[in-house]
Amino acid sequence: MEYKFSNRALSAKPSRIREISARGAVDPEFISFAIGNPASETFPIEDIRKCNDMIYDKAANYALQYGPSIGDAEFRKLLMQRLVEKEGIAAEGNDILITTGSQQGLTIMPMTVTNEGDVVLVEQYTYMGALSCMRGMCAVPYGVKVDETGSIDVAALEEACKTVKNIRYLYLIPNFQNPMGVTMPLEKRKKVYELACKYDFLIYEDNPYGELRYDGEPVPSFKSFDTEGRVVYAGSFSKVLAAGLRLGFLCASNELIAKMTALKGNIDSGSSVQASLIARYYMEQGLLDPHIEETRKLYAKKKNAMVNGLDKYMSSKCSRTNPEGGMFLWVTLPEDADADAVFDAALENHIGVIPSSCFAPDEDKPGKSFRLCFATPTLEQIEIGCKRFGDVTKKFFGE
Amino acid sequence: MEYKFSNRALSAKPSRIREISARGAVDPEFISFAIGNPASETFPIEDIRKCNDMIYDKAANYALQYGPSIGDAEFRKLLMQRLVEKEGIAAEGNDILITTGSQQGLTIMPMTVTNEGDVVLVEQYTYMGALSCMRGMCAVPYGVKVDETGSIDVAALEEACKTVKNIRYLYLIPNFQNPMGVTMPLEKRKKVYELACKYDFLIYEDNPYGELRYDGEPVPSFKSFDTEGRVVYAGSFSKVLAAGLRLGFLCASNELIAKMTALKGNIDSGSSVQASLIARYYMEQGLLDPHIEETRKLYAKKKNAMVNGLDKYMSSKCSRTNPEGGMFLWVTLPEDADADAVFDAALENHIGVIPSSCFAPDEDKPGKSFRLCFATPTLEQIEIGCKRFGDVTKKFFGE
Repeated sequence: MEYKFSNRALSAKPSRIREISARGAVDPEFISFAIGNPASETFPIEDIRKCNDMIYDKAANYALQYGPSIGDAEFRKLLMQRLVEKEGIAAEGNDILITTGSQQGLTIMPMTVTNEGDVVLVEQYTYMGALSCMRGMCAVPYGVKVDETGSIDVAALEEACKTVKNIRYLYLIPNFQNPMGVTMPLEKRKKVYELACKYDFLIYEDNPYGELRYDGEPVPSFKSFDTEGRVVYAGSFSKVLAAGLRLGFLCASNELIAKMTALKGNIDSGSSVQASLIARYYMEQGLLDPHIEETRKLYAKKKNAMVNGLDKYMSSKCSRTNPEGGMFLWVTLPEDADADAVFDAALENHIGVIPSSCFAPDEDKPGKSFRLCFATPTLEQIEIGCKRFGDVTKKFFGE
Repeated sequence: MEYKFSNRALSAKPSRIREISARGAVDPEFISFAIGNPASETFPIEDIRKCNDMIYDKAANYALQYGPSIGDAEFRKLLMQRLVEKEGIAAEGNDILITTGSQQGLTIMPMTVTNEGDVVLVEQYTYMGALSCMRGMCAVPYGVKVDETGSIDVAALEEACKTVKNIRYLYLIPNFQNPMGVTMPLEKRKKVYELACKYDFLIYEDNPYGELRYDGEPVPSFKSFDTEGRVVYAGSFSKVLAAGLRLGFLCASNELIAKMTALKGNIDSGSSVQASLIARYYMEQGLLDPHIEETRKLYAKKKNAMVNGLDKYMSSKCSRTNPEGGMFLWVTLPEDADADAVFDAALENHIGVIPSSCFAPDEDKPGKSFRLCFATPTLEQIEIGCKRFGDVTKKFFGE
């Protein structure tokens, strides 16, 4: 039979990252700076195993049964405490919904607050998985340019607020943004929040990398100064514990969380209780903070290796960001570059990166940059990969 | 701030089951025939624990990392073998997508094949969680009456095919239907499939209970005679292993599964690899079939206890179904009954059941029946609960 797919299904494109990975899979020399996985060597396997054992010792029936859609009550309480302590978020008036990975929040948000054709403001380059979730709910991402610091241009944002209709929310990754690795300063966060109040839209503060800071001082979250219930804060255990747990959470006003929980029930009834208990027991034993500290050290080393490698090997005509945390940095080619040719040449030279076009809400503005992930490769792969990528840039743009 | 919720969010209603459960939580004498959980005493805790140990012995890094959106390859292969052997489904041309519980399939289906306002045909009473997923994707469920056997009336179905526009699929639970407990005979399945071909729509064959047959002979699945790729078959581990694994799967044509996988990526990137490996290792050790056999025996005992209890205590003016498997049976009151009053009186008498209105796609046809779940309560609770419920019916309708 000939299928009639929905508009959502027709809009779903095969992931470029998967294409690049597939290419890598058949090339034994391939090094990937493309895929954005956390480093497997950070997974605290033995401690997670012990938490698992605790479940089977004392809570097996609970873990193996359906749980509440909103998630385990004790785990939610612990998470709220952590947000109060680490992020200065107010517990009162806010609630927490456990999600199946923070990816799920990216679907729940447009599901809850957008109708077909409603607009979500995003930065000029942003996480592709967020864009496809918006499109998957028939919302329309609208890209706002970034300024020279790499985060959203406030004047351009206000211009968009004035001219674009049916804006429902602004999607941001304020810390170590994916793909650019940039952190938005506090002053700008406050201005952006004022615009949200003035033009009456929500802010989705996606913060999967926030705890992975190696340099500089933490910047207060939007949610910490959210007096109006406009901010939905999204956290994740994928980068600080293990991606395979499929465990994230949303923190928002009670009213928003109630609606989101009802819709979450449709998506999967409720997230795995077992996964929640693993993270809960891990936190209850005080293991999370020391573990994050170790992960930070490793990622700092990897980030420095990539920064040094690029500075050593890359053409001086290209620029790069220098993230204070997270997993990614951003390389920009000269203005007249042929980014597709550089991308292809990099693949030929057995090195995978992701072109900025993948992160562009607007297909007409593909950009001439690449995202490089330093979290997944080993230090040795980073050195070799930077040399390969650097050689390609020199071939195109000279020393 | 005042939130502007999406139409999806506005359509999401608080679950009646949860209301009833909440009432039960504050009543120490309460017995619930309402909630539809599998019996916790069936969970093979020690064997699941061993499978967990195997993961941490040999596949921890794999289990704790992001997995492919479509699911673990070996697990999918095993599931397909099982469908070939147990259900006579053709492996060729079909593929399998792992879902986070079979609930997730109920969202992926309308997400993939319906646009706003498209119609999904359903039986007059059907699983409420499926209805809310359809509405959550802005599709419109259209109820088709059932005949005296309790499954869809073929003439009424053809009438709907002729008169209703934009039908995208027919949602069915052909084995031990939720809520009625009825199984659709083969002859009717073939007629329904012919109508799907003639009027060009898909069939979603939801089969979470199929393996829980205690009496009678298995009936071939729709998918087993699906020559046109019209059937999406949905299976679940919630009732045969453990609901807490949040593990289900869809089997459909390669083309459908490819689209569904792209949309599944938006929902949660991919289901838990750990959960898939638990089920895979459990199956690889040949543990699943003997375990299902044990579960069947227990549920058969519980079903018989409920049937006997109702026959002993219930007013002869009420009727009940006699399911050959699954978890539910269906009690129907006399035509002139006030179902709300009976429901309230049951709650007063410390017994929870679910009114047919919860399963009705059409609010104007709430019906005068109740779903009773015999899987969750103990044998003792079944005896006491049937007495309480029976007493209520006798109070209203006499002996």
